[in-house]
Amino acid sequence: MTTTVTHDVEAATTAATEAFATYRATTPEQRGAFLEAIATEIESDKDAIIEAAVAESHLPVGRITGEVGRTAGQLRMFADVVRRGDHLGVRIDPAMPDREPLPRADIRQRMIPLGPVAVFGASNFPLAFSTAGGDTASALAAGCPVVVKGHPAHPRTGQLVADAISRALEKSGLPQGTFTFVLGEGFELGQALVRDPRIKAVGFTGSRAGGLALVEAASKREEPIPVYAEMSSINPVVVLPGALAERDTDTFAQAYVGSLTLGAGQFCTNPGLLFLPAGEQGDAFVQAVGHAVAGTTGQPMLTPGIADAYAKGTGMLKGADGVRTVGEGDADGQHAPAALVSEAATLDGVTDEVFGASGVIVRYADVDALSTSLEGLEGQLTATVHYAPADKEAAQQLLPVLELKAGRVLFNGWPTGVEVGHAMVHGGPFPATSDSRSTSVGSLAIERFQRPVAYQDVPADLLPESLRDDNPWGLSRRIDGVLE
Amino acid sequence: MTTTVTHDVEAATTAATEAFATYRATTPEQRGAFLEAIATEIESDKDAIIEAAVAESHLPVGRITGEVGRTAGQLRMFADVVRRGDHLGVRIDPAMPDREPLPRADIRQRMIPLGPVAVFGASNFPLAFSTAGGDTASALAAGCPVVVKGHPAHPRTGQLVADAISRALEKSGLPQGTFTFVLGEGFELGQALVRDPRIKAVGFTGSRAGGLALVEAASKREEPIPVYAEMSSINPVVVLPGALAERDTDTFAQAYVGSLTLGAGQFCTNPGLLFLPAGEQGDAFVQAVGHAVAGTTGQPMLTPGIADAYAKGTGMLKGADGVRTVGEGDADGQHAPAALVSEAATLDGVTDEVFGASGVIVRYADVDALSTSLEGLEGQLTATVHYAPADKEAAQQLLPVLELKAGRVLFNGWPTGVEVGHAMVHGGPFPATSDSRSTSVGSLAIERFQRPVAYQDVPADLLPESLRDDNPWGLSRRIDGVLE
Repeated sequence: MTTTVTHDVEAATTAATEAFATYRATTPEQRGAFLEAIATEIESDKDAIIEAAVAESHLPVGRITGEVGRTAGQLRMFADVVRRGDHLGVRIDPAMPDREPLPRADIRQRMIPLGPVAVFGASNFPLAFSTAGGDTASALAAGCPVVVKGHPAHPRTGQLVADAISRALEKSGLPQGTFTFVLGEGFELGQALVRDPRIKAVGFTGSRAGGLALVEAASKREEPIPVYAEMSSINPVVVLPGALAERDTDTFAQAYVGSLTLGAGQFCTNPGLLFLPAGEQGDAFVQAVGHAVAGTTGQPMLTPGIADAYAKGTGMLKGADGVRTVGEGDADGQHAPAALVSEAATLDGVTDEVFGASGVIVRYADVDALSTSLEGLEGQLTATVHYAPADKEAAQQLLPVLELKAGRVLFNGWPTGVEVGHAMVHGGPFPATSDSRSTSVGSLAIERFQRPVAYQDVPADLLPESLRDDNPWGLSRRIDGVLE
Repeated sequence: MTTTVTHDVEAATTAATEAFATYRATTPEQRGAFLEAIATEIESDKDAIIEAAVAESHLPVGRITGEVGRTAGQLRMFADVVRRGDHLGVRIDPAMPDREPLPRADIRQRMIPLGPVAVFGASNFPLAFSTAGGDTASALAAGCPVVVKGHPAHPRTGQLVADAISRALEKSGLPQGTFTFVLGEGFELGQALVRDPRIKAVGFTGSRAGGLALVEAASKREEPIPVYAEMSSINPVVVLPGALAERDTDTFAQAYVGSLTLGAGQFCTNPGLLFLPAGEQGDAFVQAVGHAVAGTTGQPMLTPGIADAYAKGTGMLKGADGVRTVGEGDADGQHAPAALVSEAATLDGVTDEVFGASGVIVRYADVDALSTSLEGLEGQLTATVHYAPADKEAAQQLLPVLELKAGRVLFNGWPTGVEVGHAMVHGGPFPATSDSRSTSVGSLAIERFQRPVAYQDVPADLLPESLRDDNPWGLSRRIDGVLE
């Protein structure tokens, strides 16, 4: 097996462009089988991959093992999606030769892949949001070759996964240029990739600064391209009074702290801001949170840079006007988890994402004040409501606010944990993402990498399979606007 | 009736933002009825609108009358689309409480409107691509308030149509801020509109310079927003040898010149470049085109600026290396239509759009050379193939090239004439548009103005109608990934 690593962006995008014609012409069965082959190859090298990922990310074996399953499951989900073929969006408006005053032509529409896609994986999911993660899986499913910029925090993991994809390509008889893994230090390589005119879309998961730098690089291209950057979110959690009254305070506080400190808080859906009613029951919750946090210990973070940023960010939160520390964990040689509460009249200083296990509790006087605070937030990946039936009126008032603010609204749970499915949205208004029109998790993600083409009066024997009258792939189609 | 015109962008976007909550909460029936009411109100003031549009655009009464019908029909098509509700894209992944190792939450997805949309209409369709044209109709259908920047070439027409929309809002009991017509000279007003943080998407039809200026203005916003600019296209037409041999040369040449000179050539789908086989049959076609063009006369153009640009652009085409004039029409006090042929080895100087009735014929030696030339073109709205069964092999080679190059590929017709339907794509790769992922004509256009939201474990009595188990709107839904 030759190595699949290159430092040469030019060579990677050239190979991707050359592979595009062959790869996009694959049938649903061929493409589905290839996606499954990637899953199989990753699983077959599971031990080495897990060892590398644990060593490079400092995440526990159990978590990384789960991520292998998630990554393989995601690839198999897209294999099913590709075989079903609904993403092709077939529409047929049959000819009307006798229409007056003018006849209507036969017009058929399908989606085609955009072209080579650049993917920048995340540090915090070295498998599920990285080399063969959701962006790669959905772009390959759409028929786009992929060039992955390997994450410098887990180069060895990335390379092992790239090798697995390379083997899957070989076994599937597909050109190696369909997937390339590019590795390099620093800023320049990624910028060059985004500016390359042969790259037709970008997928990114990471920091706001990183995402905005790619948006900026893309804006300097002559040809605008979609940049799907999933960036930052503080994931507001709203505790409504009825829910607070109904819950066991300690259990509820433990659950909050559990979500806050899970994986050292290194999730884009970490609950950074919790809105809590003023009053005694809220006070008791704050106290219980303090106890719960005191029972936690610091965990190693993904990189020294991320740990430093956590320490700095948490320090800034602590220094914000009206903020006091509710409780801190045992640092244990790392950085301690921290729960803070703000008594300030405004949210100044507590709404920037701090990546890691610190969160701020904000008290609210009534639902109107809460609604105003929520309206003032930036766009979010998630918004959570803790709710009891007594809160119905408040929830009805808040839901329209929250759905305009976030990609996912969830009740009586915690935002960490993003199900891979058909209805999931892992996205949301800026700055949660740079393009709210889609999701980076779940089957809808395939639509990010396609565009429609209409075929007018194309002779039957020249039509692509998906548009033929005999419908050889058995697709759901929209005939004259009506789904069949 | 108070006037619906304002010069105040700030007031318009404020009103749109305030109207958004009410407007997006309309039921499919309410929103559909409103779209139909706009059509009815436009038709009820048809005489005045036609008179104004003819006077302002210099287009013939017959053409403008047809455009009223097209505009009303487009609004009614979107009323049907809204009532059917497929654009809501409902997906439900039911809970799996017993799943191992972790239960699955109930997750439901629907599309919601992005928010207020700015629309910049085109000069060449004062009705169908302007104040109540495709961009406005699709944005309103999606549930977005619209602010139209009135086109300075037809302010009176625009105002009459805006008045019709205002009456429809009043009769439908909807807030006037749902639609605002903003009028003002020059560049600044449009720029201010695009930069306004409350505007969440932009629709534009016009020149490349105009579209790129809006893309640039949008890139200076803090929050990136979708800009759907439909800009420029030279709409290559390929004549294959078999088709040329089979056709009656004079009739074929007349049809080409008819498409080239229709409406003074003022269509974004005007066939600016025609690829013709080398050899005697091609020579005869060129000669016949010369005769056909000589029989045409100049028609008044939309504005003096457009007429000047046509004269200048055609002059530059004539001056390009290896270009000679095949025939010219009778200027008749206007600017003459012109057919040119290029004998140059390259396409240098003949691939920039000249808006108006001039076109260039390019000769090709064989299909490989033709394919190389087509691959070198920029993105296009349309690509046309004139084809006979003898050309099958050539067409199979060219189709993959053309579908990557254009939004619509059509056979044995002419690109002018864009059917409003469900399968139409009026879009394509840059610079035909700034965002190839959709279309500005046809029902798919509604999807430009939406984004997905996931609802996780939201109590049944709080779910939006479209996501309820009892499916009160009778929507097609995707359950666990399978369309029902």
